[in-house]
Amino acid sequence: MTTSPISVPDLIARKRDGLEYSRAELETLIFGYVRGEVPDYQISAWLMAVYLRGMTAREVADLTLVMADSGEQFDLSSLQNTVDKHSTGGVGDKTSLILTPMLSALGLTVAKMSGRGLAHTGGTIDKLESIPGWSGELSDAAFLTQAREIGLALVGQSKDLAPADGLLYALRDVTATVACLPLIASSIMSKKLASGAHTIVLDVKVGAGAFMKTLDDGKALARAMVDIGSHAGRRVRAVLTDMDAPLGHFAGNSLEVQEAIATLNGHGPHDLTELCVALAVEALAAHGEAQGTAETRARQTLTNGSALAKLRAFVAAQGGDPSYIDHPDKLDVAPGRAEVNAQTGGFVQAVDALAVGQAVLVLGGGRERKNEAIDHGVGVELIKKPGEAVAAGEVLARIYHRDGRGLEKALELLKGGIRVDAEQPEVPELILGRVE
Amino acid sequence: MTTSPISVPDLIARKRDGLEYSRAELETLIFGYVRGEVPDYQISAWLMAVYLRGMTAREVADLTLVMADSGEQFDLSSLQNTVDKHSTGGVGDKTSLILTPMLSALGLTVAKMSGRGLAHTGGTIDKLESIPGWSGELSDAAFLTQAREIGLALVGQSKDLAPADGLLYALRDVTATVACLPLIASSIMSKKLASGAHTIVLDVKVGAGAFMKTLDDGKALARAMVDIGSHAGRRVRAVLTDMDAPLGHFAGNSLEVQEAIATLNGHGPHDLTELCVALAVEALAAHGEAQGTAETRARQTLTNGSALAKLRAFVAAQGGDPSYIDHPDKLDVAPGRAEVNAQTGGFVQAVDALAVGQAVLVLGGGRERKNEAIDHGVGVELIKKPGEAVAAGEVLARIYHRDGRGLEKALELLKGGIRVDAEQPEVPELILGRVE
Repeated sequence: MTTSPISVPDLIARKRDGLEYSRAELETLIFGYVRGEVPDYQISAWLMAVYLRGMTAREVADLTLVMADSGEQFDLSSLQNTVDKHSTGGVGDKTSLILTPMLSALGLTVAKMSGRGLAHTGGTIDKLESIPGWSGELSDAAFLTQAREIGLALVGQSKDLAPADGLLYALRDVTATVACLPLIASSIMSKKLASGAHTIVLDVKVGAGAFMKTLDDGKALARAMVDIGSHAGRRVRAVLTDMDAPLGHFAGNSLEVQEAIATLNGHGPHDLTELCVALAVEALAAHGEAQGTAETRARQTLTNGSALAKLRAFVAAQGGDPSYIDHPDKLDVAPGRAEVNAQTGGFVQAVDALAVGQAVLVLGGGRERKNEAIDHGVGVELIKKPGEAVAAGEVLARIYHRDGRGLEKALELLKGGIRVDAEQPEVPELILGRVE
Repeated sequence: MTTSPISVPDLIARKRDGLEYSRAELETLIFGYVRGEVPDYQISAWLMAVYLRGMTAREVADLTLVMADSGEQFDLSSLQNTVDKHSTGGVGDKTSLILTPMLSALGLTVAKMSGRGLAHTGGTIDKLESIPGWSGELSDAAFLTQAREIGLALVGQSKDLAPADGLLYALRDVTATVACLPLIASSIMSKKLASGAHTIVLDVKVGAGAFMKTLDDGKALARAMVDIGSHAGRRVRAVLTDMDAPLGHFAGNSLEVQEAIATLNGHGPHDLTELCVALAVEALAAHGEAQGTAETRARQTLTNGSALAKLRAFVAAQGGDPSYIDHPDKLDVAPGRAEVNAQTGGFVQAVDALAVGQAVLVLGGGRERKNEAIDHGVGVELIKKPGEAVAAGEVLARIYHRDGRGLEKALELLKGGIRVDAEQPEVPELILGRVE
């Protein structure tokens, strides 16, 4: 018996009426959309139906697989113990610079595609380009060889992974369908599945500035993503973290590389170090290692120089000058300095990560449009973090600027973004939970 | 204090979250859409949110007023006791041909815009064009003068009434958002409000072939439309009718005009006569007349010749030859005849109105595309109606064709559309209820 294919309006009606899709039905919608055969206006009605009717765990997993299958996929099957990492946050997140050499020092393989920064978010590729000579462009063969030999290779967006995600995201952004758990989970995980790693550790940010405002919402998102991984035959674990303030003390490309190197030398800021250790522990636990052993081994990579050695080898393999890893003070840091001082004494209540990211952007350290050149040397140093006491007039933050470019606006952003008040605030734990 | 205007995604989010819109917010969406500033993909997400979240009675009324306000509107304020009529069905509905002269004979004023037929639905303008010379093109001044002097004027789609409705309907059709009470009610009523009449009588069809499958759904739609009318300061009343079979015995342009004239001479088929009387009673009741008096007066217009006289005057005023009203056998009826015979004896169970409409279409009596010429003379006569007994071989229906055009397909449609079975069916009442 031949059956005529179901029409797109009939498919939309199924979700509208709360029914569950088969994988084939999701392929009709998503592949049709990517091919340009299903128009925006049908997909946006469908997105709203998904937003209001939800999806079962099986459906979200199938949607994610279909999205991953909508374009090219990295084939990492020739590598052992591949691991990837994703953070749902953005501002001041330099964990990849530290975590990826830690993971390779621990015997895992990181063969990862990373992005460039846009607007207030920084990108790992931009940060690494602070190191003279380093390039994120590698042939597929060189990428796989390096990952096999060193255990660490990072490339820029060389493939069109999960193109459905980019298309759907752009549409969700203008149709009030962003904040929808099945759509968020499938968006993140489709790119991760297409990226090919067998183990994926997730840093799910929770807080006022994050997608997920409450711990419960964050746990639900983490659970959904872990379940998608199981359905796809991957090992996925998530750490839930507080994201109300940026991690560490620095934002800006060279400055973050310097902070990452300090951390790999065992002298990193507490929050950044603890998050990297926690994520490394999850990656090891996903490979069957006991929690205690995993934590001991992860911390050792930061004190015995093994992770730093991996970073050095990785930078050199991708054309970078390794002397900058040994002498990070050689990195170009913009010479201009300006300070943000406390108007009154008290305690730092909060540091607005978005304001910090925007300050780096106006200083020239980020880009408004794709392909814009950026100044790797500018940035912001957060001297006082939430919960710390300050006296009136004390320095809260330092700006590293080039010839005053963007300085006035950056000062204004930071003054507005760092709140000081008389009462001592309760500073939440950085690590709020884990989901496996 | 100045407030920045709310963005379209934020407006969509309000309905997504189950909130109620102000009239100004609906204007932002609907006027923006009609001006081409708000794209299809945002409106389709909004339509799905409306479908799933619903609207309050106040909100539906405001949406309707905004849609009515999205284009030109007929100004009938110079006329007394204006009344308009709308039917939610389509096939074989020749009530306008009978009801409008009845209403003007009863002292009310009908100044109405009517449509042409498309696909399987017939249009009043097409039917009237069966009468040589009659034209639906009138200047605004001539239209108002004729309505004032005769109490009856009908024009074609001379104005772009409620353009938002056409745009929204096209989008609903492809996004699975058609069957939504607030959207159906606002669609119908926006055109009626823009048409300018103070009193509106509605014929809400209920049944398998109608939008509203159950009496409860039909009552809810009628209630919504009556409430919209109240909100807009109009008087609206609705009659709920069974629509499983076409009204009367004839479908096709000249044939329906002949049947209408017979009805205005007091010799009409029972169902058609009763529906026209019921709708006329509602129009009079809306003007404060008691039920009993109203019904007596309405029936008298069909026996004392007053309604027929109005039709004659109206046809003549719009250029038609009134001798065709006196001698309807002069109307062009196609000479070809073919019959559909009962295969077995029993009772007619159902006559599929859609199949009858499609038969007229394939015979040449309707159009597939706008502006196509049609053959006014072809059509279908339904000899046996649901509930009637038939012997094997007896004639169920007669086809009036021109040189065999479309005959084979029309025969096939009617054979499939008229179902005969042994058991005597329960034939529902034509008039199922009323809402005021």
